[in-house]
Amino acid sequence: MRVLGVDPGLTRCGIGVVEGEIGRPLSMLDVGVIRTSSHLHVAERLVTVEKGIDAWIDEYRPDAVAVERIFARSDSSTIMGTAQASGIALVAAARRGLPVALHTPSEVKAAVSGSGRADKAQVTAMVTRILRLEAPPKPADAADALALAITHIWRGGAADRLRAAAETQRAASAPTTRTSHLVTTSRIPRSRP
Amino acid sequence: MRVLGVDPGLTRCGIGVVEGEIGRPLSMLDVGVIRTSSHLHVAERLVTVEKGIDAWIDEYRPDAVAVERIFARSDSSTIMGTAQASGIALVAAARRGLPVALHTPSEVKAAVSGSGRADKAQVTAMVTRILRLEAPPKPADAADALALAITHIWRGGAADRLRAAAETQRAASAPTTRTSHLVTTSRIPRSRP
Repeated sequence: MRVLGVDPGLTRCGIGVVEGEIGRPLSMLDVGVIRTSSHLHVAERLVTVEKGIDAWIDEYRPDAVAVERIFARSDSSTIMGTAQASGIALVAAARRGLPVALHTPSEVKAAVSGSGRADKAQVTAMVTRILRLEAPPKPADAADALALAITHIWRGGAADRLRAAAETQRAASAPTTRTSHLVTTSRIPRSRP
Repeated sequence: MRVLGVDPGLTRCGIGVVEGEIGRPLSMLDVGVIRTSSHLHVAERLVTVEKGIDAWIDEYRPDAVAVERIFARSDSSTIMGTAQASGIALVAAARRGLPVALHTPSEVKAAVSGSGRADKAQVTAMVTRILRLEAPPKPADAADALALAITHIWRGGAADRLRAAAETQRAASAPTTRTSHLVTTSRIPRSRP
Protein backbone atom coordinates (compact mmCIF):
# COMPACT_ATOMS: atom_id res chain seq x y z
CA MET A 1 0.00 0.00 0.00
CA ARG A 2 1.32 3.40 -1.00
CA VAL A 3 0.12 6.41 0.98
CA LEU A 4 0.63 10.10 0.36
CA GLY A 5 0.70 12.06 3.62
CA VAL A 6 -0.08 15.77 3.65
CA ASP A 7 0.60 18.13 6.56
CA PRO A 8 -1.39 21.08 5.23
CA GLY A 9 -0.09 24.61 5.37
CA LEU A 10 0.05 27.72 3.25
CA THR A 11 3.65 28.74 3.93
CA ARG A 12 4.95 25.18 4.16
CA CYS A 13 2.86 22.17 3.17
CA GLY A 14 4.64 18.95 4.15
CA ILE A 15 4.22 16.03 1.76
CA GLY A 16 5.61 12.51 1.82
CA VAL A 17 5.06 9.08 0.32
CA VAL A 18 5.37 5.85 2.30
CA GLU A 19 4.94 2.33 1.02
CA GLY A 20 4.39 -0.89 2.93
CA GLU A 21 1.91 -2.85 4.93
CA ILE A 22 1.09 -3.70 8.53
CA GLY A 23 3.64 -6.04 10.08
CA ARG A 24 6.35 -5.37 7.50
CA PRO A 25 9.03 -2.70 7.34
CA LEU A 26 7.80 0.51 5.71
CA SER A 27 9.82 2.49 3.22
CA MET A 28 9.86 6.14 2.25
CA LEU A 29 9.62 6.90 -1.45
CA ASP A 30 9.94 10.67 -1.23
CA VAL A 31 9.43 13.60 1.09
CA GLY A 32 9.31 17.34 0.56
CA VAL A 33 7.65 20.63 1.28
CA ILE A 34 5.50 22.77 -0.98
CA ARG A 35 6.30 26.38 -0.17
CA THR A 36 4.38 29.47 -1.19
CA SER A 37 5.48 33.06 -0.86
CA SER A 38 3.59 35.22 1.61
CA HIS A 39 3.93 38.03 -0.95
CA LEU A 40 1.32 36.36 -3.12
CA HIS A 41 -2.46 36.57 -2.77
CA VAL A 42 -3.94 33.68 -0.78
CA ALA A 43 -5.78 32.43 -3.89
CA GLU A 44 -2.53 32.26 -5.83
CA ARG A 45 -0.84 30.49 -2.91
CA LEU A 46 -3.62 27.90 -2.80
CA VAL A 47 -3.27 27.30 -6.53
CA THR A 48 0.45 26.65 -5.97
CA VAL A 49 -0.38 24.16 -3.20
CA GLU A 50 -2.93 22.48 -5.46
CA LYS A 51 -0.48 22.19 -8.37
CA GLY A 52 2.13 20.80 -6.01
CA ILE A 53 -0.15 18.14 -4.55
CA ASP A 54 -1.47 17.25 -8.03
CA ALA A 55 2.11 16.74 -9.23
CA TRP A 56 2.95 14.46 -6.29
CA ILE A 57 -0.20 12.38 -6.82
CA ASP A 58 0.51 12.10 -10.54
CA GLU A 59 4.10 11.07 -9.94
CA TYR A 60 3.56 8.54 -7.14
CA ARG A 61 0.00 7.35 -7.82
CA PRO A 62 -0.76 6.58 -4.15
CA ASP A 63 -3.50 4.15 -3.10
CA ALA A 64 -4.71 6.59 -0.46
CA VAL A 65 -4.13 10.10 0.83
CA ALA A 66 -3.84 10.93 4.55
CA VAL A 67 -4.36 14.52 5.62
CA GLU A 68 -3.98 16.04 9.07
CA ARG A 69 -7.32 16.94 10.59
CA ILE A 70 -7.37 20.64 11.45
CA PHE A 71 -9.13 22.00 14.50
CA ALA A 72 -10.22 25.57 15.05
CA ARG A 73 -7.89 27.23 17.48
CA SER A 74 -8.46 30.89 18.06
CA ASP A 75 -4.83 31.37 19.13
CA SER A 76 -3.47 30.75 15.67
CA SER A 77 -3.32 33.46 13.03
CA THR A 78 -2.47 30.93 10.33
CA ILE A 79 -5.32 28.51 11.00
CA MET A 80 -7.49 29.80 8.14
CA GLY A 81 -4.74 29.27 5.56
CA THR A 82 -4.05 25.83 7.01
CA ALA A 83 -7.73 24.91 6.79
CA GLN A 84 -7.91 26.15 3.21
CA ALA A 85 -4.80 24.17 2.26
CA SER A 86 -6.29 21.04 3.85
CA GLY A 87 -9.43 21.53 1.76
CA ILE A 88 -7.27 21.71 -1.37
CA ALA A 89 -5.54 18.43 -0.41
CA LEU A 90 -8.88 16.70 0.23
CA VAL A 91 -10.29 17.80 -3.11
CA ALA A 92 -7.13 16.88 -5.04
CA ALA A 93 -7.47 13.31 -3.75
CA ALA A 94 -11.27 12.98 -3.92
CA ARG A 95 -11.38 14.36 -7.47
CA ARG A 96 -9.34 11.32 -8.54
CA GLY A 97 -11.50 8.91 -6.55
CA LEU A 98 -8.66 8.22 -4.13
CA PRO A 99 -9.58 7.23 -0.57
CA VAL A 100 -8.94 10.14 1.79
CA ALA A 101 -8.49 9.86 5.52
CA LEU A 102 -8.15 12.53 8.17
CA HIS A 103 -6.00 11.79 11.21
CA THR A 104 -5.74 14.08 14.21
CA PRO A 105 -2.30 15.21 15.44
CA SER A 106 -2.70 13.10 18.60
CA GLU A 107 -3.66 10.02 16.58
CA VAL A 108 -0.51 10.49 14.52
CA LYS A 109 1.68 11.01 17.59
CA ALA A 110 0.19 7.96 19.26
CA ALA A 111 0.60 5.79 16.17
CA VAL A 112 4.26 6.54 15.59
CA SER A 113 5.50 7.09 19.16
CA GLY A 114 2.98 5.28 21.37
CA SER A 115 1.97 8.54 23.07
CA GLY A 116 -0.60 11.09 21.92
CA ARG A 117 1.43 13.75 23.70
CA ALA A 118 4.76 13.15 21.97
CA ASP A 119 6.59 16.34 20.97
CA LYS A 120 7.81 17.22 17.49
CA ALA A 121 11.34 15.93 18.17
CA GLN A 122 10.01 12.54 19.29
CA VAL A 123 7.79 12.23 16.22
CA THR A 124 10.70 13.09 13.93
CA ALA A 125 12.97 10.60 15.72
CA MET A 126 10.40 7.81 15.43
CA VAL A 127 9.70 8.57 11.75
CA THR A 128 13.46 8.40 11.09
CA ARG A 129 13.66 5.06 12.86
CA ILE A 130 10.50 3.50 11.38
CA LEU A 131 11.54 4.39 7.83
CA ARG A 132 15.23 3.60 8.52
CA LEU A 133 16.32 6.99 7.19
CA GLU A 134 19.94 8.10 7.33
CA ALA A 135 18.99 11.56 8.57
CA PRO A 136 15.86 13.04 10.17
CA PRO A 137 13.52 14.58 7.58
CA LYS A 138 13.41 18.37 7.75
CA PRO A 139 11.56 20.61 8.30
CA ALA A 140 9.08 19.29 10.88
CA ASP A 141 6.27 19.59 8.31
CA ALA A 142 8.01 17.01 6.11
CA ALA A 143 8.41 14.60 9.04
CA ASP A 144 4.75 15.14 9.97
CA ALA A 145 3.64 14.24 6.43
CA LEU A 146 5.56 10.96 6.66
CA ALA A 147 4.11 10.31 10.13
CA LEU A 148 0.62 10.77 8.66
CA ALA A 149 1.32 8.24 5.91
CA ILE A 150 2.75 5.75 8.45
CA THR A 151 -0.30 6.26 10.68
CA HIS A 152 -2.60 5.62 7.76
CA ILE A 153 -0.91 2.34 6.87
CA TRP A 154 -0.81 1.14 10.47
CA ARG A 155 -4.38 2.15 11.26
CA GLY A 156 -5.68 1.12 7.87
CA GLY A 157 -6.47 -2.29 6.52
CA ALA A 158 -9.60 -4.03 7.72
CA ALA A 159 -10.94 -1.09 9.70
CA ASP A 160 -10.71 1.16 6.64
CA ARG A 161 -12.48 -1.32 4.43
CA LEU A 162 -15.31 -1.74 6.91
CA ARG A 163 -15.73 2.00 7.18
CA ALA A 164 -15.56 2.48 3.42
CA ALA A 165 -18.38 -0.06 3.07
CA ALA A 166 -20.41 1.81 5.69
CA GLU A 167 -19.75 5.16 3.96
CA THR A 168 -20.85 3.76 0.61
CA GLN A 169 -24.03 2.47 2.18
CA ARG A 170 -24.72 5.75 3.91
CA ALA A 171 -23.98 7.69 0.71
CA ALA A 172 -26.33 5.40 -1.21
CA SER A 173 -29.19 6.32 1.11
CA ALA A 174 -28.29 10.02 1.22
CA PRO A 175 -30.16 12.51 -0.98
CA THR A 176 -27.11 13.46 -3.09
CA THR A 177 -25.96 9.98 -3.97
CA ARG A 178 -22.47 9.71 -5.35
CA THR A 179 -20.06 6.81 -5.59
CA SER A 180 -17.91 7.17 -2.51
CA HIS A 181 -14.51 5.67 -2.00
CA LEU A 182 -13.95 7.92 0.94
CA VAL A 183 -13.12 6.78 4.40
CA THR A 184 -12.50 8.50 7.66
CA THR A 185 -10.65 6.75 10.41
CA SER A 186 -11.06 9.29 13.15
CA ARG A 187 -13.22 7.09 15.31
CA ILE A 188 -11.45 3.81 14.75
CA PRO A 189 -9.84 2.66 18.01
CA ARG A 190 -6.11 3.05 17.63
CA SER A 191 -4.08 -0.13 17.67
CA ARG A 192 -0.44 -0.05 16.89
CA PRO A 193 0.68 -3.18 15.12
CA MET B 1 -18.55 44.36 -15.02
CA ARG B 2 -19.88 40.95 -14.08
CA VAL B 3 -19.04 39.62 -10.60
CA LEU B 4 -19.64 36.19 -9.09
CA GLY B 5 -20.15 36.43 -5.33
CA VAL B 6 -19.54 33.41 -3.12
CA ASP B 7 -20.64 33.08 0.49
CA PRO B 8 -18.61 29.97 1.31
CA GLY B 9 -20.06 27.08 3.27
CA LEU B 10 -20.06 23.31 3.27
CA THR B 11 -23.75 22.73 3.97
CA ARG B 12 -24.93 25.76 2.01
CA CYS B 13 -22.64 27.76 -0.26
CA GLY B 14 -24.39 30.90 -1.48
CA ILE B 15 -23.59 31.98 -5.02
CA GLY B 16 -24.82 34.87 -7.13
CA VAL B 17 -23.97 36.87 -10.23
CA VAL B 18 -24.38 40.64 -10.47
CA GLU B 19 -23.67 42.84 -13.44
CA GLY B 20 -23.23 46.58 -13.63
CA GLU B 21 -20.92 49.41 -12.82
CA ILE B 22 -20.49 52.14 -10.26
CA GLY B 23 -23.11 54.88 -10.60
CA ARG B 24 -25.52 52.81 -12.67
CA PRO B 25 -28.28 50.40 -11.63
CA LEU B 26 -26.99 46.88 -10.99
CA SER B 27 -28.79 43.77 -12.14
CA MET B 28 -28.85 40.21 -10.88
CA LEU B 29 -28.20 37.51 -13.47
CA ASP B 30 -28.70 34.52 -11.20
CA VAL B 31 -28.56 33.41 -7.58
CA GLY B 32 -28.54 30.05 -5.89
CA VAL B 33 -27.11 27.80 -3.24
CA ILE B 34 -24.77 24.82 -3.62
CA ARG B 35 -25.82 22.25 -1.02
CA THR B 36 -23.90 19.19 0.11
CA SER B 37 -25.16 16.37 2.28
CA SER B 38 -23.66 16.05 5.74
CA HIS B 39 -23.80 12.27 5.19
CA LEU B 40 -20.87 12.53 2.80
CA HIS B 41 -17.18 12.69 3.66
CA VAL B 42 -15.84 16.25 3.83
CA ALA B 43 -13.60 15.59 0.80
CA GLU B 44 -16.59 14.53 -1.27
CA ARG B 45 -18.55 17.58 -0.08
CA LEU B 46 -15.71 19.88 -1.10
CA VAL B 47 -15.58 18.26 -4.55
CA THR B 48 -19.32 18.98 -4.90
CA VAL B 49 -18.73 22.63 -3.94
CA GLU B 50 -15.86 22.82 -6.43
CA LYS B 51 -17.94 21.34 -9.26
CA GLY B 52 -20.76 23.73 -8.45
CA ILE B 53 -18.56 26.83 -8.47
CA ASP B 54 -16.81 25.64 -11.65
CA ALA B 55 -20.19 25.25 -13.35
CA TRP B 56 -21.28 28.77 -12.34
CA ILE B 57 -18.02 30.29 -13.56
CA ASP B 58 -18.27 28.40 -16.85
CA GLU B 59 -21.87 29.47 -17.37
CA TYR B 60 -21.57 33.15 -16.44
CA ARG B 61 -17.90 33.88 -17.24
CA PRO B 62 -17.56 36.60 -14.60
CA ASP B 63 -14.88 39.30 -14.77
CA ALA B 64 -14.09 38.81 -11.10
CA VAL B 65 -14.96 36.64 -8.12
CA ALA B 66 -15.72 38.04 -4.67
CA VAL B 67 -15.48 35.70 -1.69
CA GLU B 68 -16.32 36.38 1.93
CA ARG B 69 -13.22 36.62 4.09
CA ILE B 70 -13.41 34.05 6.88
CA PHE B 71 -12.08 34.70 10.35
CA ALA B 72 -11.17 32.12 12.95
CA ARG B 73 -13.83 32.02 15.62
CA SER B 74 -13.49 29.33 18.21
CA ASP B 75 -17.22 29.40 18.93
CA SER B 76 -18.14 27.92 15.59
CA SER B 77 -18.08 24.19 14.91
CA THR B 78 -18.53 24.74 11.19
CA ILE B 79 -15.67 27.22 10.73
CA MET B 80 -13.23 24.63 9.35
CA GLY B 81 -15.65 23.51 6.63
CA THR B 82 -16.37 27.15 5.79
CA ALA B 83 -12.66 27.92 5.53
CA GLN B 84 -12.09 24.89 3.32
CA ALA B 85 -15.00 25.86 1.06
CA SER B 86 -13.59 29.39 0.77
CA GLY B 87 -10.26 27.91 -0.29
CA ILE B 88 -12.03 25.95 -3.01
CA ALA B 89 -13.73 29.12 -4.27
CA LEU B 90 -10.43 31.04 -4.33
CA VAL B 91 -8.67 28.28 -6.26
CA ALA B 92 -11.54 27.85 -8.73
CA ALA B 93 -11.22 31.52 -9.66
CA ALA B 94 -7.42 31.83 -9.52
CA ARG B 95 -6.94 28.70 -11.63
CA ARG B 96 -8.72 30.52 -14.47
CA GLY B 97 -6.72 33.69 -13.94
CA LEU B 98 -9.80 35.56 -12.69
CA PRO B 99 -9.27 38.41 -10.24
CA VAL B 100 -10.31 37.33 -6.75
CA ALA B 101 -11.18 39.65 -3.91
CA LEU B 102 -11.94 38.92 -0.29
CA HIS B 103 -14.39 41.15 1.53
CA THR B 104 -15.12 40.95 5.23
CA PRO B 105 -18.71 40.61 6.47
CA SER B 106 -18.60 44.13 7.91
CA GLU B 107 -17.27 45.56 4.64
CA VAL B 108 -20.19 43.92 2.84
CA LYS B 109 -22.74 45.12 5.38
CA ALA B 110 -21.34 48.63 5.21
CA ALA B 111 -21.29 48.67 1.41
CA VAL B 112 -24.90 47.61 0.93
CA SER B 113 -26.55 49.12 4.00
CA GLY B 114 -24.27 51.93 5.11
CA SER B 115 -23.61 50.24 8.45
CA GLY B 116 -21.02 47.56 9.23
CA ARG B 117 -23.33 46.31 11.96
CA ALA B 118 -26.41 45.71 9.82
CA ASP B 119 -28.22 42.45 10.54
CA LYS B 120 -29.06 39.71 8.03
CA ALA B 121 -32.58 41.04 7.46
CA GLN B 122 -31.27 44.53 6.62
CA VAL B 123 -28.69 43.12 4.21
CA THR B 124 -31.34 41.02 2.47
CA ALA B 125 -33.70 44.01 2.27
CA MET B 126 -30.99 46.23 0.76
CA VAL B 127 -29.91 43.58 -1.74
CA THR B 128 -33.54 43.20 -2.83
CA ARG B 129 -33.81 46.97 -3.29
CA ILE B 130 -30.44 47.51 -4.99
CA LEU B 131 -31.09 44.75 -7.51
CA ARG B 132 -34.81 45.65 -7.85
CA LEU B 133 -35.87 42.07 -7.16
CA GLU B 134 -39.51 41.11 -6.87
CA ALA B 135 -38.85 38.98 -3.77
CA PRO B 136 -36.00 38.78 -1.26
CA PRO B 137 -33.43 36.12 -2.22
CA LYS B 138 -33.52 33.10 0.08
CA PRO B 139 -31.82 31.60 2.00
CA ALA B 140 -29.61 34.24 3.66
CA ASP B 141 -26.51 32.65 2.07
CA ALA B 142 -27.90 33.48 -1.38
CA ALA B 143 -28.54 37.10 -0.39
CA ASP B 144 -25.04 37.31 1.10
CA ALA B 145 -23.49 36.09 -2.15
CA LEU B 146 -25.30 38.87 -4.04
CA ALA B 147 -24.24 41.40 -1.40
CA LEU B 148 -20.62 40.32 -1.92
CA ALA B 149 -20.89 40.84 -5.67
CA ILE B 150 -22.51 44.26 -5.18
CA THR B 151 -19.77 45.21 -2.71
CA HIS B 152 -17.13 44.18 -5.18
CA ILE B 153 -18.56 46.31 -7.95
CA TRP B 154 -19.03 49.33 -5.70
CA ARG B 155 -15.62 49.08 -4.05
CA GLY B 156 -13.86 48.02 -7.24
CA GLY B 157 -12.76 50.07 -10.16
CA ALA B 158 -9.66 52.18 -9.86
CA ALA B 159 -8.68 50.93 -6.42
CA ASP B 160 -8.68 47.33 -7.65
CA ARG B 161 -6.62 48.11 -10.68
CA LEU B 162 -4.03 49.96 -8.59
CA ARG B 163 -3.79 47.06 -6.20
CA ALA B 164 -3.57 44.51 -9.01
CA ALA B 165 -0.65 46.46 -10.44
CA ALA B 166 1.03 46.50 -7.03
CA GLU B 167 0.43 42.75 -6.60
CA THR B 168 1.92 42.01 -10.01
CA GLN B 169 4.97 44.07 -9.14
CA ARG B 170 5.35 42.36 -5.78
CA ALA B 171 4.85 38.94 -7.34
CA ALA B 172 7.48 39.74 -9.96
CA SER B 173 10.04 40.35 -7.24
CA ALA B 174 8.94 37.35 -5.12
CA PRO B 175 10.85 34.06 -5.31
CA THR B 176 7.99 32.06 -6.81
CA THR B 177 7.13 34.38 -9.65
CA ARG B 178 3.78 33.86 -11.33
CA THR B 179 1.59 36.10 -13.39
CA SER B 180 -0.84 37.55 -10.92
CA HIS B 181 -4.19 39.03 -11.70
CA LEU B 182 -5.16 38.82 -8.09
CA VAL B 183 -6.32 41.67 -5.98
CA THR B 184 -7.34 42.07 -2.40
CA THR B 185 -9.42 44.98 -1.32
CA SER B 186 -9.35 44.42 2.40
CA ARG B 187 -7.30 47.53 3.12
CA ILE B 188 -8.88 49.83 0.60
CA PRO B 189 -10.80 52.56 2.47
CA ARG B 190 -14.48 51.90 1.97
CA SER B 191 -16.37 54.49 -0.02
CA ARG B 192 -19.90 53.87 -1.01
CA PRO B 193 -20.70 55.50 -4.32
